[in-house]
Amino acid sequence: MIKNQLAEKTTYQSAIEAVRLLMKETLLDTDELVLEMMQHLTAADGKNLRARLLLVSALDHEGFVPRDAVIAGAAVEILHLATLVHDDVIDEAEIRRGHASLQKRFGKKEAVICGDYLFCISLALVAEISIRYPEKLKEFTQAMTKICLGELRQFKHNSDTDLSVLNYLRIIAGKTSALFSLAMYSGAIINQCSDKEARFMARIGYNMGMAFQILDDCADYQSDVVTTKKSVRHDLAEEVVTLPLIYALLKQPELKHRIGQQHLSPTEINEIIAEVVKVGGVSMAYDVAEKYYLKTRKMINVLVDENKKLHLNEILDRIWKVGN
Amino acid sequence: MIKNQLAEKTTYQSAIEAVRLLMKETLLDTDELVLEMMQHLTAADGKNLRARLLLVSALDHEGFVPRDAVIAGAAVEILHLATLVHDDVIDEAEIRRGHASLQKRFGKKEAVICGDYLFCISLALVAEISIRYPEKLKEFTQAMTKICLGELRQFKHNSDTDLSVLNYLRIIAGKTSALFSLAMYSGAIINQCSDKEARFMARIGYNMGMAFQILDDCADYQSDVVTTKKSVRHDLAEEVVTLPLIYALLKQPELKHRIGQQHLSPTEINEIIAEVVKVGGVSMAYDVAEKYYLKTRKMINVLVDENKKLHLNEILDRIWKVGN
Repeated sequence: MIKNQLAEKTTYQSAIEAVRLLMKETLLDTDELVLEMMQHLTAADGKNLRARLLLVSALDHEGFVPRDAVIAGAAVEILHLATLVHDDVIDEAEIRRGHASLQKRFGKKEAVICGDYLFCISLALVAEISIRYPEKLKEFTQAMTKICLGELRQFKHNSDTDLSVLNYLRIIAGKTSALFSLAMYSGAIINQCSDKEARFMARIGYNMGMAFQILDDCADYQSDVVTTKKSVRHDLAEEVVTLPLIYALLKQPELKHRIGQQHLSPTEINEIIAEVVKVGGVSMAYDVAEKYYLKTRKMINVLVDENKKLHLNEILDRIWKVGN
Repeated sequence: MIKNQLAEKTTYQSAIEAVRLLMKETLLDTDELVLEMMQHLTAADGKNLRARLLLVSALDHEGFVPRDAVIAGAAVEILHLATLVHDDVIDEAEIRRGHASLQKRFGKKEAVICGDYLFCISLALVAEISIRYPEKLKEFTQAMTKICLGELRQFKHNSDTDLSVLNYLRIIAGKTSALFSLAMYSGAIINQCSDKEARFMARIGYNMGMAFQILDDCADYQSDVVTTKKSVRHDLAEEVVTLPLIYALLKQPELKHRIGQQHLSPTEINEIIAEVVKVGGVSMAYDVAEKYYLKTRKMINVLVDENKKLHLNEILDRIWKVGN
């Protein structure tokens, strides 16, 4: 068991690798009932962005990451995975991380239970370390609640072509930023920062999450969907209204009735994408992402710890570069 | 807020009422996004059996229940509610506690998120008190994991007319006894019992849960389903194979191909029920329930605390009476 072999503290790079191994081990060391699903999930690697943020936030002044941060990093990634599994049930998404989604491969009902199981596994990791931060468990449950509400808010506004910018921002604050924020907060607490410092880290996470999600939503409007593919993984196909579309609809309200149709064909989706780009929806959304990006950058540069500054700026750069 | 007004300790009867109020308050004090679903859920009262067990187990030697037990009781009932909401998605059940199930009334997707939300709310209550029992959070996550696996095991054996008695017992140990056991364990810990005593209480809960679930499964074979109703809430309709059917199939293997048919009509279900009763499936299942019942009784009577003995015997009697 890697968990029992984790060093008391380790470098940032080793910690990233340790999180990856611990996640795999935790998921695969299981009852045969869920083994096949866990194998399916571990076959696709994520970027482990949330764990990275947690690890950076947990760096001590000598540049080492404590053991608890590795466990918390795995917990936060498994929690994220749980939300993805349930998301895919809700959105009826067929593809996830380049593979068939769990609900597509094993069925919706199995995916519901599997998501629940992942929640439990994540919580079990939290339970292991929370003995040392008993009064902080509340933050974890609050973040989880925010994520659920974000999901629900998104779902309720599916196909809602009147979705306001404010409500869009509330949705992504819940479904994405809450976890980014939790990751940064937890890392800081594990690094024995004061609550005030931890809240500052949490706000960096929050703003980075906002930039990340808006860029991610823009990315969906960056390229044509492959028209030959029968199943299209695109927000439009899943009736999810995001910022580029909101701005495009404000500029060109006539688009509304074209979106309103059930089951858009790949061709129709491509046409709408082209229109959204043409009227400036994507570039306006980018401007908002940039505001969050700049705010995050500014906050990072306030930090005293050069190590944290370096790694957080690296992560932020990568998010910005991938999104542009 | 009732939570802030809870007395340091209270009588058993007041504690039951306090759990009911706290549950209602916790569910209804929420975002408008989930309010309607929460109102729907709180409209139907449950028996709060798991909370009762927790409260009894938490009784001190003067017959009072500490405040934490009321909070834990509400947490355990909300956790139970979360599992019911997801169960109904899995089983596509239309009726729950005499009302339309959440998934029927609001949709499957909403029910998935709502179940997740209930998990979070339950966990938030746990987080409030776990500060005082930090090393016990693990028990909570382990019970949750067992429940998930029990659910999954049941689902995998849907329509499995070869389900063994042993596998049936493993299913109900997970889906029902794990929570009964957790309730009793938590109460004992809150009452500052030793871990050994708490484990003994947990075993009483486990055995009572087994008796309860087998009786509940027998009850499904006790009366004809109403043939005029279009939707039938019966294990057979939901393809759940339980002990009376397992025994009937052992006695009369020819029944298998009649069960195997998809979508049994109410008439067919009534015929199979009659057959299961006739060949002795129900009475054999009762015999097993009785074994667990007697074992539970015996364990309860070992307890020194007369108050606990009294209330646990009352609960056990009621379970047995309702089931017979």
